[in-house]
Amino acid sequence: MLAEIITIGDEILIGQVIDTNSAWIAEQLNLIGVKVKQISSVSDNEEHILKSLEEASKRASIIIITGGLGPTKDDITKPTLCKFFNTKLVFHEEIYRKIEERFLKMKLPALESNKKQADLPENCTIIPNFKGTASGMLFEKEGVYFISIPGVPFEMKAMMTDSVLPFIKQKFELPVIVHRTILTHGLGESFLAEKIKDWENKLPATIKLAYLPSPEHLRLRMSAYGDAERDLMDILDVEETRLKKIIPNHIFGYGKQSLQEILGKLLLNKKASISSAESCTGGNIARLITSIPGSSSYFKGSIIAYSNEIKIKLLNVNPGDIDKFGAVSEEVVTQMALGVRKVLNTDYSISTSGIAGPDGGTAEKPVGTVWIAVAGPEGVIAKKYVFSHDRDINIRRATSRALDNMRKMLLGIYVVN
Amino acid sequence: MLAEIITIGDEILIGQVIDTNSAWIAEQLNLIGVKVKQISSVSDNEEHILKSLEEASKRASIIIITGGLGPTKDDITKPTLCKFFNTKLVFHEEIYRKIEERFLKMKLPALESNKKQADLPENCTIIPNFKGTASGMLFEKEGVYFISIPGVPFEMKAMMTDSVLPFIKQKFELPVIVHRTILTHGLGESFLAEKIKDWENKLPATIKLAYLPSPEHLRLRMSAYGDAERDLMDILDVEETRLKKIIPNHIFGYGKQSLQEILGKLLLNKKASISSAESCTGGNIARLITSIPGSSSYFKGSIIAYSNEIKIKLLNVNPGDIDKFGAVSEEVVTQMALGVRKVLNTDYSISTSGIAGPDGGTAEKPVGTVWIAVAGPEGVIAKKYVFSHDRDINIRRATSRALDNMRKMLLGIYVVN
Repeated sequence: MLAEIITIGDEILIGQVIDTNSAWIAEQLNLIGVKVKQISSVSDNEEHILKSLEEASKRASIIIITGGLGPTKDDITKPTLCKFFNTKLVFHEEIYRKIEERFLKMKLPALESNKKQADLPENCTIIPNFKGTASGMLFEKEGVYFISIPGVPFEMKAMMTDSVLPFIKQKFELPVIVHRTILTHGLGESFLAEKIKDWENKLPATIKLAYLPSPEHLRLRMSAYGDAERDLMDILDVEETRLKKIIPNHIFGYGKQSLQEILGKLLLNKKASISSAESCTGGNIARLITSIPGSSSYFKGSIIAYSNEIKIKLLNVNPGDIDKFGAVSEEVVTQMALGVRKVLNTDYSISTSGIAGPDGGTAEKPVGTVWIAVAGPEGVIAKKYVFSHDRDINIRRATSRALDNMRKMLLGIYVVN
Repeated sequence: MLAEIITIGDEILIGQVIDTNSAWIAEQLNLIGVKVKQISSVSDNEEHILKSLEEASKRASIIIITGGLGPTKDDITKPTLCKFFNTKLVFHEEIYRKIEERFLKMKLPALESNKKQADLPENCTIIPNFKGTASGMLFEKEGVYFISIPGVPFEMKAMMTDSVLPFIKQKFELPVIVHRTILTHGLGESFLAEKIKDWENKLPATIKLAYLPSPEHLRLRMSAYGDAERDLMDILDVEETRLKKIIPNHIFGYGKQSLQEILGKLLLNKKASISSAESCTGGNIARLITSIPGSSSYFKGSIIAYSNEIKIKLLNVNPGDIDKFGAVSEEVVTQMALGVRKVLNTDYSISTSGIAGPDGGTAEKPVGTVWIAVAGPEGVIAKKYVFSHDRDINIRRATSRALDNMRKMLLGIYVVN
């Protein structure tokens, strides 16, 4: 089954907006077994839109159109669809009442332009929008389904999830696909590939494997194709168990989880608290830990000790050791972790000290050198890493590595010698 | 002058990668006066690519093609272009030697697949790639120029900037356009529009104005169209001066600058140091300040005081005031700013205390309520804000508001009563 995505409007064509909608829609369609043949962004021009609809309908059976449905713009999607489907706009009293109710709730008057949003093509099936004022529309023409929805991301996503994807699944006989995304940390793409090569080569033909890298982690997605969901789940369970035996300590979660979320759950389970003492990561560890709702139950605080003065004064780092070994050293990062754990009175603590760049590197300690320590009741472990030349990437990689080392300490798989 | 952008490959069509390249290319083209008619992502299929090239060349005079030039993939861009332009691949010894040199520098052997990268269509002009191994190609067919470049963002950007954009500017008679992007903070889109309405209405017809909002700031971009660059600059100067008189305190910078960069410059000029005491922003202020290279010259550190215990112990907040007024209060945020300034011994300090959400709100202090204080030798100023329901947006908006308040204190335009 093939689909196409067409976005209408100038924002993308002038480079003002990055088209994240199409990527999201494409991913959702692929997950239910619909392949996307083409994604097109076209201008607010009737002739151009008509041509694109015509072309797309020759290649695919499902055409998803986003954008051009707002109340204020010179939006031409609806009249153009009327022309394409040889129909006219009719006013829907009940839809206008819902738009008015929505404005009433926000204590605002509905504008005249909002009245136009209740005008919809006569021969379409209306797709309800519970998060906004622009309805979606479904048309059928010669076996091809055309779906027009707003471009506002949270409205679009809700309508896709609640109406469009269920409709497609019911209308078409799609292959059964089950996906499992396994989150790994600590091995680069080529190292991981080398390590799991035998397992990957022996995967049954029904499973396709994708490597999805980012500076924070590497996701492995297994997609199993077949007839019965239950069987596919069983096959994935078997393969996942095999994979876990090969890289037991590198797998930290599944699906859309994050390291900071997994870490939070481990701390909640242990009823343990945490703090951080950050130099080169500059608060990024604290920021990620506190990005999780409810993190105040386990995160007490952090000391961002950028200057040596603060390392000495607040974290009780020995000034002699800074002189002797430098701020980026095993001695200092260890004392930082122990210091913050004691001062903030937490069960666990994380510390970082490194050279983020672009300047400040030496032959012995080049840009990208970062010492990371984790401490807990079981003791303290410090390790040195050398990341990249890029300041932003160094901060991100040091942060995720620090979170993962803490995760492993909590699980008892990163142990004090 | 019209252009089209075609991306080739499956990553975008399966939603694995968001097409940031096309947005960047579209923006660059628009900035030199070339309009983009359509952006298309097409699959790795010869017939499909040929059809897209054919269609695009009917609508535009410049076709930019990205992707499908890597060494390892089943990349079909080059053979397909050969078919389209009725030519064949020929091996370029001197290009292969450059590929080998590149590998030698990385102390790696060039692979057999890299040899294929020196095969290029006979009738194209080669566009050099100084950052990678895949050359770009320029073709001309019936007055339409086709440019094929790699999809790796930093290679693509360098080739566009160094070769493609200069070529287009030289080849076509483009209108002279001068852009000026003015960065504002503190006024929402509709409030700002209301405030500058008269100025906007009186703008000369040669100037187009765009509002570019984000949670952190609102960019106003003036684009002036005409014949002589010098004249356009003068017109923009006049309008900018007028605008500055209307919103003098809301303009913080220009172009690609950020609040944290501007703040850093102000601190460097004053030879002043800064610290932060963060509750609801959880380290995000420190993270942004330290994202600027060289920030260690003015940023000493921060205390992330998520728990009340830390606010009392490390920042000397009065426990009685926490009981009486709550942690999210003028009293507490003021004491936090004064506390961190004293403890970390800095000239200036920023503090935040709020309810980021999604839980923890009350009728009196709903989710999104944030107190922000800034302190310096001139005293301390605290102010309450109510942002949104979204945790992430609340943290981002509180952070940028805190940075902007500090900027204004440093400039003497946010003053202690």
